[in-house]
Amino acid sequence: MTIRVAVCYGRPEDPAAFDDYYERVHIPLASKVPGLTGYTYSKAGSLDGSEPPYYSVASLYFPDAETLQAGLTSPEMGAAAADVPNFATGGATLFTHEEVSVLDGS
Amino acid sequence: MTIRVAVCYGRPEDPAAFDDYYERVHIPLASKVPGLTGYTYSKAGSLDGSEPPYYSVASLYFPDAETLQAGLTSPEMGAAAADVPNFATGGATLFTHEEVSVLDGS
Repeated sequence: MTIRVAVCYGRPEDPAAFDDYYERVHIPLASKVPGLTGYTYSKAGSLDGSEPPYYSVASLYFPDAETLQAGLTSPEMGAAAADVPNFATGGATLFTHEEVSVLDGS
Repeated sequence: MTIRVAVCYGRPEDPAAFDDYYERVHIPLASKVPGLTGYTYSKAGSLDGSEPPYYSVASLYFPDAETLQAGLTSPEMGAAAADVPNFATGGATLFTHEEVSVLDGS
């Protein structure tokens, strides 16, 4: 079981400033959240070349609900969450979901 | 490198009917898309217990841009895409992003 916390950033007012701040300040902060088993980040794209609904997407992976809950309530997550308004001028949409494989290999 | 196609479903008019159709009809269709290296699906949640922005989330994983492009233009993807209006009464938000690890292990 893997729980993914998705952080979908809306297009910021100044993308270059967002990119610089995210990589320089926010990644080091968010990387410190206890219990993380993975953390990925990249710009979003669309399937047809149109403007994607989000500018970029971060994925924070946790092994189970208990570890997620401990991570969410940690001082490190508090610091990372408090940092988001410093750069996310296009807003941030957060949600969780489990990575449950449904691939039918037949 | 892994490219993730995110399919985020808005809350459907009839969740039970959505669930039944998705599992019975759509998973078998979408599983046939060529080049898929992974396919996960689950209900979405929120970090604070509030209503999440999406009802459920599917992740389709492809190993690279060429395989993704071949998958997107396949007849199997055409069939899966054509099936979405049959059940996604709450809409579907699609985007792509690469799973690039940024975890600072220090």
